[in-house]
Amino acid sequence: MEVASRSHNNESAEPSSSHVLGWMKAIVPHRIINKIAEKAKEAKKLGIDDPRRIIHSFKVGLAITLVSLFYYFKPLYEGFGVSAMWAVLTVVVVFEFSVGATLGKGLNRVCATLLGGGLGVGAHWLACYSGKNGEPVVIAVFVFIVAATVTFVRFFPKMKARYDYGLMVFILTFCLVSVSGYREDEVIRMAHERVVTIAIGSCTSLLVCILICPVWIGEDLHNQVADNLEKLGKFLEGFGGEYFKISNDAQSNTDKSFLQGYKSALNTKNSEENMANLARWEPRHGRFKFRHPWKLYLKAGTLTRDCAYKIEALSSHLNSENSTPWPEEIQSKIQESYTMISSETGKALKELASAIKTMARSSSVNTHIANSNAAAETLKSPFKISVLEEDTDLLEIVPAATVASLLMDVVTCTEKIAACVNDLASQANFNSPNNNNNMIPGNSRLLHRGSVQPISGTEGPHHVITIGE
Amino acid sequence: MEVASRSHNNESAEPSSSHVLGWMKAIVPHRIINKIAEKAKEAKKLGIDDPRRIIHSFKVGLAITLVSLFYYFKPLYEGFGVSAMWAVLTVVVVFEFSVGATLGKGLNRVCATLLGGGLGVGAHWLACYSGKNGEPVVIAVFVFIVAATVTFVRFFPKMKARYDYGLMVFILTFCLVSVSGYREDEVIRMAHERVVTIAIGSCTSLLVCILICPVWIGEDLHNQVADNLEKLGKFLEGFGGEYFKISNDAQSNTDKSFLQGYKSALNTKNSEENMANLARWEPRHGRFKFRHPWKLYLKAGTLTRDCAYKIEALSSHLNSENSTPWPEEIQSKIQESYTMISSETGKALKELASAIKTMARSSSVNTHIANSNAAAETLKSPFKISVLEEDTDLLEIVPAATVASLLMDVVTCTEKIAACVNDLASQANFNSPNNNNNMIPGNSRLLHRGSVQPISGTEGPHHVITIGE
Repeated sequence: MEVASRSHNNESAEPSSSHVLGWMKAIVPHRIINKIAEKAKEAKKLGIDDPRRIIHSFKVGLAITLVSLFYYFKPLYEGFGVSAMWAVLTVVVVFEFSVGATLGKGLNRVCATLLGGGLGVGAHWLACYSGKNGEPVVIAVFVFIVAATVTFVRFFPKMKARYDYGLMVFILTFCLVSVSGYREDEVIRMAHERVVTIAIGSCTSLLVCILICPVWIGEDLHNQVADNLEKLGKFLEGFGGEYFKISNDAQSNTDKSFLQGYKSALNTKNSEENMANLARWEPRHGRFKFRHPWKLYLKAGTLTRDCAYKIEALSSHLNSENSTPWPEEIQSKIQESYTMISSETGKALKELASAIKTMARSSSVNTHIANSNAAAETLKSPFKISVLEEDTDLLEIVPAATVASLLMDVVTCTEKIAACVNDLASQANFNSPNNNNNMIPGNSRLLHRGSVQPISGTEGPHHVITIGE
Repeated sequence: MEVASRSHNNESAEPSSSHVLGWMKAIVPHRIINKIAEKAKEAKKLGIDDPRRIIHSFKVGLAITLVSLFYYFKPLYEGFGVSAMWAVLTVVVVFEFSVGATLGKGLNRVCATLLGGGLGVGAHWLACYSGKNGEPVVIAVFVFIVAATVTFVRFFPKMKARYDYGLMVFILTFCLVSVSGYREDEVIRMAHERVVTIAIGSCTSLLVCILICPVWIGEDLHNQVADNLEKLGKFLEGFGGEYFKISNDAQSNTDKSFLQGYKSALNTKNSEENMANLARWEPRHGRFKFRHPWKLYLKAGTLTRDCAYKIEALSSHLNSENSTPWPEEIQSKIQESYTMISSETGKALKELASAIKTMARSSSVNTHIANSNAAAETLKSPFKISVLEEDTDLLEIVPAATVASLLMDVVTCTEKIAACVNDLASQANFNSPNNNNNMIPGNSRLLHRGSVQPISGTEGPHHVITIGE
């Protein structure tokens, strides 16, 4: 059989393919096998990228299996009868990837069911007074008014962000209870069963979600904000070398993915707002309090995006020719300053990222920012008319000048981000900086790396900056 | 009574307040009245901003009332019994604002219910072979495997984008049918009822959604892409005047909202992708075919965002001082060129926007782009070293140079957008340009506005450009 398969699929015959694989290849069209192999590869990648996805899938299976026990055990079943399926339905609908989303949906569902069920019973009770013929009319009017009004309320942005699901469940329960009350005459029992089974489903989901490898969306937001800052930092650290095409053996061998990383920070607005909304539902966990200042993460995210827009502009200068028209020594001075500004802001951003990640204040951020400001000051001298030749086309220095201006913008952005992270640090009680790394504040680490030699303390412009990378 | 209320609320007593209002003010705390008034104002604004929201609310009310007729009419009720509530539930869950979303959810729900119900019946049938004691175990194993696998499949980005809801309903139906089959012994009847009631609910939703003032999400996407282009165009048209603080009476009196409009184009990625996904479900309507090239709208959206990033950078130069160091006549030449480039690209973008909106090719776009390219060429002469004084600080021309470079980037972006809209025009069969406006291609309109006097055809650099605004 294996021989046959090989002769069929000469072009892709692998010597190590097992009997089963060979047999499958013989009867299933090649195209389908390729498709399946591709999907399996994609699935594997999804699992490796974030193993929590696999755990989540098992958790959902477990929660549904647990709740379906209602049907298997007679005493439980006899209490609820067919209504027990509401519990299964609730688990499928409510169980989300993160604790915040599950809690939000679960609470929305339980509260909305309580309210909708209560009002439904009320509507049924009112309708009873209008006689057997009037009842359906009254109920239909109620249903129409409630459905239309609540549907409109769902358009309010604040309601949509936090209570959209609850409003839908409210309409649902109100309609089910009031409408089926017309036939069943046991409205209250029905409303009661629905509330209890939904509460059971929600609790099962929540318990499984929180007790087995919980995924906290607040932590995801926290990490995402820090990761995006780090990506910007990595870009800026590498920017100088890339811009001046410094052929560094160590650098050219490594991949250039750091040049593209910042792009993921450009379109984070919606996902961050969504995460912050869900994070508000989460209880205290680990280093996060119940009222953790999630709003500041949104602010940091906005500032990060502003910075990413500048970096997007910077990156468009990477691939263009930069033939600057000034003499060698001035060119090298510019190169020094640019590399210094970008690498120092890059370091500052990376420090800020790690400050967020470790929830510990960083003392060296201000030094890095001061260094980049100092380097920006040194840019003034090479940009003097006197150093250029008479017939220089000023347009030739436009790209270099633009890069200078963008780098200065990036420094301003970094200062704003640092202020925001500082607010975050005080509101979320970050730890104090680790004093071991920092005997002489800030400078010791930089001196160690051999890049800055401060002469007269903090006055930036008087620094002599030599770059020894 | 009115007197009493006035004495209570002296600070906000309105002479025209009615008796009822006055009476309400007397007994309800002031804070709550304010809150209600605020919400009512917000609701009014939501309704005025998009009256389709009000219509949608009524449509939902109508669809639910229609479907609840199942309960009121005995013959219908006797056919389905309690299962009829699945129809109500389906309407509440499936009815969305746009036809695309409703169709997507409805089809997902019906197909997933069919598949899940079928497989659930199959699982029940298999489990029957394992005896009364083995049955719950076999079913529990099936439920666990299906729930876990399908939950994992929901993580595939392509599945998530289009079939997320269907996958959830599949788990739901499979679990409900197979699990309740253990007790009910009428699995097939149950599966059949569920499929039929859900189909009825989905059809009711769809009919109401399509027949009464339908909202086509494809049209929304179409308009959003055009609107964003127009906003960028408006910014660029006004940029020259704002940058050089040209005090134009007509302009200074109008509001400056055009300077902020572009911001809404920065964060459109997610919403546009979502809209394009939903638009694919929509049938042929108006000028949109079933297989309308929605992907090109996404491409146009991406290019628009790229352009918006440049404009974001440009706008940061609006409020800074622009004291350029060159003589009066050169300064005025730069002013001419900048204003020309930005207003011509602005016009080009607005033409593109209206081309998309009216689905008719525009012939003047290329002329506008050629004009802005020509103006960019004229920028070369003022940026000569020789025109500056010896001790000029080159950093002083950095902002002006940056603006020049950004404007050139914007021209490049505009060219790309024009190419993309051109693709869209051929794939979506846009109408040919209206020849009446355009006897001499492109130039006649511009000449009419007294802004460009072409000398030698198309070679941009040789144009003499005078701005007569």
